[in-house]
Amino acid sequence: MALNSILKFFLPKDKIFFQLFENVGETVSIMGARLKDVVHEKDFDKRAILIKEIEDLEHVNDDYTHRIFTELGRNFITPFDREDIHYLATSLDDICDYIYASAKKINFYKVNPDDSGFQKMAELILSSCNEVQKAVAELRDMKNLRKITDAMVLINSIENQADDIFDMSIEKLFETEPDAKEVIKKREIYQIMEIVTDKCEDAANVIESIIIKYA
Amino acid sequence: MALNSILKFFLPKDKIFFQLFENVGETVSIMGARLKDVVHEKDFDKRAILIKEIEDLEHVNDDYTHRIFTELGRNFITPFDREDIHYLATSLDDICDYIYASAKKINFYKVNPDDSGFQKMAELILSSCNEVQKAVAELRDMKNLRKITDAMVLINSIENQADDIFDMSIEKLFETEPDAKEVIKKREIYQIMEIVTDKCEDAANVIESIIIKYA
Amino acid sequence: MALNSILKFFLPKDKIFFQLFENVGETVSIMGARLKDVVHEKDFDKRAILIKEIEDLEHVNDDYTHRIFTELGRNFITPFDREDIHYLATSLDDICDYIYASAKKINFYKVNPDDSGFQKMAELILSSCNEVQKAVAELRDMKNLRKITDAMVLINSIENQADDIFDMSIEKLFETEPDAKEVIKKREIYQIMEIVTDKCEDAANVIESIIIKYA
Repeated sequence: MALNSILKFFLPKDKIFFQLFENVGETVSIMGARLKDVVHEKDFDKRAILIKEIEDLEHVNDDYTHRIFTELGRNFITPFDREDIHYLATSLDDICDYIYASAKKINFYKVNPDDSGFQKMAELILSSCNEVQKAVAELRDMKNLRKITDAMVLINSIENQADDIFDMSIEKLFETEPDAKEVIKKREIYQIMEIVTDKCEDAANVIESIIIKYA
Repeated sequence: MALNSILKFFLPKDKIFFQLFENVGETVSIMGARLKDVVHEKDFDKRAILIKEIEDLEHVNDDYTHRIFTELGRNFITPFDREDIHYLATSLDDICDYIYASAKKINFYKVNPDDSGFQKMAELILSSCNEVQKAVAELRDMKNLRKITDAMVLINSIENQADDIFDMSIEKLFETEPDAKEVIKKREIYQIMEIVTDKCEDAANVIESIIIKYA
Repeated sequence: MALNSILKFFLPKDKIFFQLFENVGETVSIMGARLKDVVHEKDFDKRAILIKEIEDLEHVNDDYTHRIFTELGRNFITPFDREDIHYLATSLDDICDYIYASAKKINFYKVNPDDSGFQKMAELILSSCNEVQKAVAELRDMKNLRKITDAMVLINSIENQADDIFDMSIEKLFETEPDAKEVIKKREIYQIMEIVTDKCEDAANVIESIIIKYA
């Protein structure tokens, strides 16, 4: 808190946004890594510990997001459009919410995540989260536009791959799972995981529109 | 209609909004009470009568909402931001829509509502609706801010409790209901009921942002 | 492309929007017709060809929509509010997305579409799409307001009929289909088809608000 105040004193006001977004980007990336751990952990109780970690990270991210909105509420010049800041913070927050939701549902439904669909999906989510972190980090100086556009292209391509993995997983699920209740549970988890990659794409689209205006 | 015109003549224009919002708040509260009656009524046909009553109330509320939008379309000074009025009316309307949807689905799916999950959920919905009515009623003079903030706190707490009841109900449903078709039906009703408490929270958030600006 | 450039040279800038919206309206109408063909085609492989055609039309529409957004990004006077253009293009694009989604799911889930629910729904979708095309086409000169309002009324009435067909189909599905997995699949397709008629209504509402402002 004290450090925080000192930082605020020395940092030009608009630098706070970059710092907060970088914190969020880092959290997104760690949560993606933790979700991958969850779907590779075969023990229910060990998974519970990982899921608790994801829950804590989600709360940390809520705090960052809340601070971004608080800073936005004060009246001073922002580094880019207020509504872009608002929308970027919201879509990054959505990524965290859906990562947590998919992790939570796995133990909640007592679903065995040792399944190629869940594991491929988690792999794609992690890659997309890492690209989101890179793109967010480049917003500060926008010197390396190439790095941002590379991240955009990858995030879009990952979202398409996730759609295909989703379709294949659902098709396999209906064909091989005899218990309709299991179908309902797993289908919901696939759907939530697929939304994570959509939300990464949303974040990428806001970053793209910021670049077009300011770079 | 005649009375309505006389009222309009005597009331300062912006008082119309308070009146309409109070009507909506009252309807929300009555609909919450009726939904509780529905889940405690064991007879299908008697439930049908209660559900019809909820449907009628939902139409009444549509009329109020429509009038709020019509008044908003005319160009004069509004008591608070036009978009806040728009968003508040929309979220209150959503509460009514989802209360009606959950009541309707019970008989539509021929689901037996004599279930602790449905009954606890309806209890929470009624409490939240009552708090929404209180908060809306205080908007007129904003003298008793304490009353509004107390309502906000309760609505948020109820939404959290509803999440827990939802999780417990879904867990129990998957564990105890052997018929997957019943799982699908009941899960949908729980989901709709849970959304009612989310919509109450949305309404509370708009009211909070109005208070911050104007109180 | 060359022709396109010549057109752009001769057409007053704002005429481009009318042309693009007419192209979209036509695509919407053809996609509605193709969806009706899909649910009447009993052979899986022949259906696959029709679905591929719908997919291609959806891509064509994406291009039109993208061009509308690009034209909107340039700074010149638009024939009506920029946000109305944006919202109209988005809702027309949604119609196409959901038509394609419902067609695609039929073969994806290997569902037999020879079912009165699917066929009535497709019939309603086609009627609504045709009315959307008529309303969009009248935007250019707004001389025949009667034609537009007739289309609006029909689109709203179709949406209500689709709600009823949806309810009846779901009721019948739960009562007659013993396999819960089939229930999940067909229910999802009914839901997507019902959304198409909602999106037609959304488009109609934007057109109505444009008329109110400009006619």
